[in-house]
Amino acid sequence: MTKVNEQFLKLPNNYLFADIAKKVNAFKVTHPKTEVITLGIGDVTRPLCPAVIEAMHKATDEMAVQSSFRGYGPEHGYDFLRYAILKNDFAPRGIHFDLDEIFVNDGAKSDTGNIQELISRDNVIGVTDPIYPVYIDSNVMAGRAGEMTDGGWSNVVYMPCTAANGFVPQIPLDRQMDVIYLCYPNNPTGTVITKEELKKWVDYALQTDTLIFYDAAYEAYINDPDIPHSIYEIKGAKKCAIEFHSYSKTAGFTGVRCGYTVVPKEVTASTMNGDRIQLNALWNRRQCTKFNGTSYISQRAAEAIYSPEGKKQVRETINYYMANARLMLSTLRKLGYQAFGGENAPYIWMQTPSGTDSWKFFQDLLYGAHVVCTPGAGFGPSGEGYVRFTAFGSHDHTEEALHRIEKWS
Amino acid sequence: MTKVNEQFLKLPNNYLFADIAKKVNAFKVTHPKTEVITLGIGDVTRPLCPAVIEAMHKATDEMAVQSSFRGYGPEHGYDFLRYAILKNDFAPRGIHFDLDEIFVNDGAKSDTGNIQELISRDNVIGVTDPIYPVYIDSNVMAGRAGEMTDGGWSNVVYMPCTAANGFVPQIPLDRQMDVIYLCYPNNPTGTVITKEELKKWVDYALQTDTLIFYDAAYEAYINDPDIPHSIYEIKGAKKCAIEFHSYSKTAGFTGVRCGYTVVPKEVTASTMNGDRIQLNALWNRRQCTKFNGTSYISQRAAEAIYSPEGKKQVRETINYYMANARLMLSTLRKLGYQAFGGENAPYIWMQTPSGTDSWKFFQDLLYGAHVVCTPGAGFGPSGEGYVRFTAFGSHDHTEEALHRIEKWS
Repeated sequence: MTKVNEQFLKLPNNYLFADIAKKVNAFKVTHPKTEVITLGIGDVTRPLCPAVIEAMHKATDEMAVQSSFRGYGPEHGYDFLRYAILKNDFAPRGIHFDLDEIFVNDGAKSDTGNIQELISRDNVIGVTDPIYPVYIDSNVMAGRAGEMTDGGWSNVVYMPCTAANGFVPQIPLDRQMDVIYLCYPNNPTGTVITKEELKKWVDYALQTDTLIFYDAAYEAYINDPDIPHSIYEIKGAKKCAIEFHSYSKTAGFTGVRCGYTVVPKEVTASTMNGDRIQLNALWNRRQCTKFNGTSYISQRAAEAIYSPEGKKQVRETINYYMANARLMLSTLRKLGYQAFGGENAPYIWMQTPSGTDSWKFFQDLLYGAHVVCTPGAGFGPSGEGYVRFTAFGSHDHTEEALHRIEKWS
Repeated sequence: MTKVNEQFLKLPNNYLFADIAKKVNAFKVTHPKTEVITLGIGDVTRPLCPAVIEAMHKATDEMAVQSSFRGYGPEHGYDFLRYAILKNDFAPRGIHFDLDEIFVNDGAKSDTGNIQELISRDNVIGVTDPIYPVYIDSNVMAGRAGEMTDGGWSNVVYMPCTAANGFVPQIPLDRQMDVIYLCYPNNPTGTVITKEELKKWVDYALQTDTLIFYDAAYEAYINDPDIPHSIYEIKGAKKCAIEFHSYSKTAGFTGVRCGYTVVPKEVTASTMNGDRIQLNALWNRRQCTKFNGTSYISQRAAEAIYSPEGKKQVRETINYYMANARLMLSTLRKLGYQAFGGENAPYIWMQTPSGTDSWKFFQDLLYGAHVVCTPGAGFGPSGEGYVRFTAFGSHDHTEEALHRIEKWS
């Protein structure tokens, strides 16, 4: 008899964004003539830049000719892209890796979801709260999260990030953790971490033998020169951190699917006998077994964003979105809302007025202003009382959404 | 303290094909002037067909323009491709599915590796032997395979397929199974299954509440009109089977990355309380959490192979490879080897002379004829005494390889 993995049954039926899409569709069906503006899901809207388009056409042409056709690529990605990553994303910050510490993937969601396969079921997971749902949901499926309670999952340690503590997570003194997920610039709050604060986490991880999964998917949006782009800017992080990067937000690759993960060879985890096992070798084994590499065309597209023209074009698009973020932040604040983030990240995290329930605010905003946000409760217990807006719309849509919110407020 | 998933440590260090590549590289380093012909890994060599190239250029151009740009696609794939799949791969065989029973992916390796996440750890896995290593390795990582012994993994039921039984797996009477992996046309043996034999498996699965994972990655290579292309040609299979398809071999997409999985809504598995759970909903939840859809360009490429020109062009490439298979089969037999498969599949499965160890034969062939095959032992205990050759080379290389084998034999 086939027995189901009952851990799946503990999860809410829908993934957060599928849930939102459903509710928006319900509105659209009953209001067919109303144009809805979506600032909910963090999806880009600007076209791919010319350098990327040119690279994709060229790669496609290569695939049409016997002599330049490429079949299976390496599971960990082509060296041309891994070299470009080392040279552009790390070397200028004084960080050096071997080529085989870089694993090209089809986007950060896959790897942030799959990475927990490397650790045993009895590790205790710590997360900042609110949080990107994938980190927790993937651990629920693996049976690592315990049971759902009012305050969250019983085996997960939540570190609240709210206006009250300036969105700076505190290391809990009363509960031990084995693995910590950090995401900076943060999704969903749009806040960042200083080198000083990040150093506390690295030091803690080294002292307590804790592993950090560091999601840097939004690092390209950092404006402030003092904010770290990578956890490896902190001394010792190579011994305790795995870092996830994505081209989705950097270069508008949400439909192209490419990113990468850094698994330094110095990062180890323990067997029950106390032997230390290199996670780099394990991740390589995992990828060789369950992944067959990223599309060649997507990898050539990613390589192109490191060219001089590519860099310039990608920067223009990021500036375009960050102009939205600035406008949203100033307008919402002018309207009297408490709004955070948006200075080094494409997300605005806003307190709902008088502590309105976040799903109720989402619904009110949808039906009152025809604007879609993401309810903070979808990101965890400390997300309640907040909503997230993204800066990834067009200027026109963003302005129009703000006008509607102003009129409705 | 971070505890490692010790199940990984039970696996051999290298994935089979990584191991072969290493040995071939060692030969090349010591014999820099010798040209090696690879008939080892099942990778295609012919360029993508014109209809696919055209579709990829068009999709790339769409991504360059604001109005036609596509960001995140649906996790389960675009409807245009799912419709094309239903209409072309199933409807002509009298098989009908709902759109949401089709899940587009980045290739069959990911899904055949990930699908075991839906079942609990205590299911007993049955496999035909020899077998594609991913099925077992992914279960080892999940802790479902037991311990490695001389005869294979202690918790895995092996069903030998050898020359002695005509490569027809027998249902074991002495051991119970909960989940069975079947792959037809078979990798590595290149043999096929008749409708009559496949019906035995479906009937067994229905009677014993067993789930079948059916890998149909090579179905496009079937010539014989009586051989089933899909398990759903057998009555009742919709209640007990999940089927995997790939464009890798059908249309040379090993570097493009696209395939799909069929999870019928009627397929269920049991909780400990005896409740039946629909696996379609669980797989959707899995994909929404840990996968973010396949590259838009790859999906448009896949759609193009269903156009009239696409179908014709894809067929020409398949015919090209199958001409190699015919030549290999006849030549190897003429040389006195026992060779199987190759009539409805792009693989030739050959007995080593006088029962030579398959890794030794691999090594002898590499150093003696400078031809790479895949040692059968890499596919499981019953693979010992065999090697696999692929038909995916060019005509010239295939002929040259056969000449060398003739000279060397």
